Amino acid sequence: MEKLKTFQSQHKDRFLDELFQLLRIPSISARTEHKDDMINAATFIKDMLLSNGADRAEVMPTAGHPVVFGSKTINAQLPTILIYGHYDVQPVEPVDLWNSPPFEPVIKAGKIYARGADDNKGQLFMHLKAFESMVKTDTLPCNVKFMIEGEEEIGSVHLKSFCEQNKEMLKSDVILISDTTMLSPDIPSITVGLRGLSYLEVEVTGPNRDLHSGLYGGAVANPINVLAEMITKLKDNNSRVTIPGFYDDVIELSSSERNEMARAPFDINAYKKALDIDEVVGESGYSTIERTGIRPTLDVCGIWGGYTGEGAKTVLPSKAYAKVSMRLVPNQQSKKIDKLFEDYFVSIAPQGVKVKVTSLHGGEGYVSPTDTIAYKSASMAIELVYGKKPVPVRSGGSIPIVSDFEKVLGVKSILMGFGLDSDAIHSPNENYPLIQFERGIETIPYFYKYFTELSKK
Amino acid sequence: MEKLKTFQSQHKDRFLDELFQLLRIPSISARTEHKDDMINAATFIKDMLLSNGADRAEVMPTAGHPVVFGSKTINAQLPTILIYGHYDVQPVEPVDLWNSPPFEPVIKAGKIYARGADDNKGQLFMHLKAFESMVKTDTLPCNVKFMIEGEEEIGSVHLKSFCEQNKEMLKSDVILISDTTMLSPDIPSITVGLRGLSYLEVEVTGPNRDLHSGLYGGAVANPINVLAEMITKLKDNNSRVTIPGFYDDVIELSSSERNEMARAPFDINAYKKALDIDEVVGESGYSTIERTGIRPTLDVCGIWGGYTGEGAKTVLPSKAYAKVSMRLVPNQQSKKIDKLFEDYFVSIAPQGVKVKVTSLHGGEGYVSPTDTIAYKSASMAIELVYGKKPVPVRSGGSIPIVSDFEKVLGVKSILMGFGLDSDAIHSPNENYPLIQFERGIETIPYFYKYFTELSKK
Repeated sequence: MEKLKTFQSQHKDRFLDELFQLLRIPSISARTEHKDDMINAATFIKDMLLSNGADRAEVMPTAGHPVVFGSKTINAQLPTILIYGHYDVQPVEPVDLWNSPPFEPVIKAGKIYARGADDNKGQLFMHLKAFESMVKTDTLPCNVKFMIEGEEEIGSVHLKSFCEQNKEMLKSDVILISDTTMLSPDIPSITVGLRGLSYLEVEVTGPNRDLHSGLYGGAVANPINVLAEMITKLKDNNSRVTIPGFYDDVIELSSSERNEMARAPFDINAYKKALDIDEVVGESGYSTIERTGIRPTLDVCGIWGGYTGEGAKTVLPSKAYAKVSMRLVPNQQSKKIDKLFEDYFVSIAPQGVKVKVTSLHGGEGYVSPTDTIAYKSASMAIELVYGKKPVPVRSGGSIPIVSDFEKVLGVKSILMGFGLDSDAIHSPNENYPLIQFERGIETIPYFYKYFTELSKK
Repeated sequence: MEKLKTFQSQHKDRFLDELFQLLRIPSISARTEHKDDMINAATFIKDMLLSNGADRAEVMPTAGHPVVFGSKTINAQLPTILIYGHYDVQPVEPVDLWNSPPFEPVIKAGKIYARGADDNKGQLFMHLKAFESMVKTDTLPCNVKFMIEGEEEIGSVHLKSFCEQNKEMLKSDVILISDTTMLSPDIPSITVGLRGLSYLEVEVTGPNRDLHSGLYGGAVANPINVLAEMITKLKDNNSRVTIPGFYDDVIELSSSERNEMARAPFDINAYKKALDIDEVVGESGYSTIERTGIRPTLDVCGIWGGYTGEGAKTVLPSKAYAKVSMRLVPNQQSKKIDKLFEDYFVSIAPQGVKVKVTSLHGGEGYVSPTDTIAYKSASMAIELVYGKKPVPVRSGGSIPIVSDFEKVLGVKSILMGFGLDSDAIHSPNENYPLIQFERGIETIPYFYKYFTELSKK
């Protein structure tokens, strides 16, 4: 592996230059005005795969944003690793909180700052450059495929049917994904559980037009006040979600499993200090780690209605809106939860308003076993580069498509992520430490090596 | 009065042309970028007063937007009427709901459509043109003064001190204001009560930055959910405001007074139909007319926080905001209510968040007696033009400065408004019926006439 290390060190600056080119493309999948940027980002990755040694690479259309597929086959007897990643990014609002423009990447204090620096362009790029390193140093030990989508941030809307239509092309022995975090460079970890997601938008309509709050206030239902009351009714005093049936499919962990989790290093005071909060809150009877790891939750991600400009406008608005995200645990079904939410939300609407609920995004949770060749390979690769055996953790986040991969392609995924909690993904000033980018590129070829070796046995 | 009527009819089209010139100036007092437009609107009115026959007219600076003062003295022995109005308008959001641009006035189906068409440029303009008519036909029966401010929509911030500094200049026998509505052209009315106002902005801060709702949701207080809960706690199940002390200074009306109010014509089904709502709501034990006329209320006029764009962004935001308006009844003190609100709102903030409350706007309620020369003059003038004796009504709206006029200048105001509920003031598609504009110009000189005659006796 010496050749590899030398190659990576010699081309370090070029790798970064190339990543910056990709980061400059504002490929925001949620915004229709960025349609061309999506094509540009996909084409950029396809061209890179070809020039880095793929036998085949193409931008494949879907009913939404395209998927980049690439592959290199050495020998049909060898195992095949399928790399999954996404070239789309989250919107950048609130823009005024960014210290530098989100699509003009810069390096400050050892970190790359840009939208997508971590999620997922930065992490995805480690795979492209690890692949190039192995090809150019003749050390690629197995076959490899790439499936890079453009709709992860909007719920991978068309990826499931893409998989269904291309099962043969996507055939592999493992799906390798770097789209999660590790606890810290000192406490490397591998994500073995993900939460599912139901994401809905609600609209509450009161009167048919905005009214003068003085002339009508007190006599007509105000959709903002009503929406606030309805949101409040979604949880009880113990921060438990009140939607009937919401917890029905939740599998409670055994006390030994919970004790195991409690052993993961976690400093509650550092956590509170980092967020500048006086107290953590959440479902009664569960620890902070459990609240984000093994329990479903409900959060309002956005709310708006009425006059939100400077100064005082006395209006009783016609409409108020909110975006509601529910994180689900394995065995909860996103579509079922959508329906339970909608039924309950409509049922608690008081007189004087109309309610509309729209499902925007969803996916199932996932649990990854730790006794697989893939897990062992990832664990060994990380231990070699980081000097410590990684700990298995459950993440509060969601990659809804992962459970579909297993259903449709019949292949398990391994979540070998190199992000850190401090990377501010989905937030202003998203960043990715250079050291994680470089160590990722170093770690990935070891995964290929161990996975190939262990598969032979 | 024949001369007058002929003059008004001959110059009808010019009056409208001139009003349109004023409506085209986007004098939004709440927005700092419209500072020059404020000066332009004030100058336009000053020039008009001079060319229409005022002895004196000037744009007088304040610490905020200027006040236009004008006067014409015939004889010091005659009474003096002080006309109050405002040249500033409300913001125009949501702009996309306007059927024509808010600052490009048009006439459609007998109505003038523009921001300010009613509130208050349209109603104010009736006074300018009534004045011109009387001057040019030599029928002005008394002295007249004009005080036209530019900060009514932001709480008349500097008008009280302007009055204090110019008491002698503003000396008058009555203040005549057209900034309210009548029930309908068939049921003319005079407003004899106004509600006061406390308008505050609240800010709830959770974590110090926007977080990924998957990684942190369920473990950290979400400021949107918290704000919703805090708003809900501001009212009980009977829609009574829960702020301790909120009702302490409210004077309950006697049952005979309430019976008197209940005789005012009001069609609840037409009201619901016009607003497209299945039911009215409000404080238990009071009718719709009472809820807006004699009871204080609390409404959220605006709310915002988190991701409000297209699609799904999974964020647990750092901050959430709301604008809260409380309409007060006579004897409640706006500053006292501000303080009660702030103390209560801070007291109900749960762990995990910080709360900030800012007072934006305020003023006291007002009750106008019906046994005055001014009320009689207005009643007779309206009856003459509309053919029916107007009924006295209490309005839910607020003109906070009216109670200050009485305190500082020692003069009562008479609220002879020609607006209609359907004028959509403060809303998209604000309008003012041509017929009301013309009848207003016709009615005002009769007020002058009767007020002068009754003052002599």
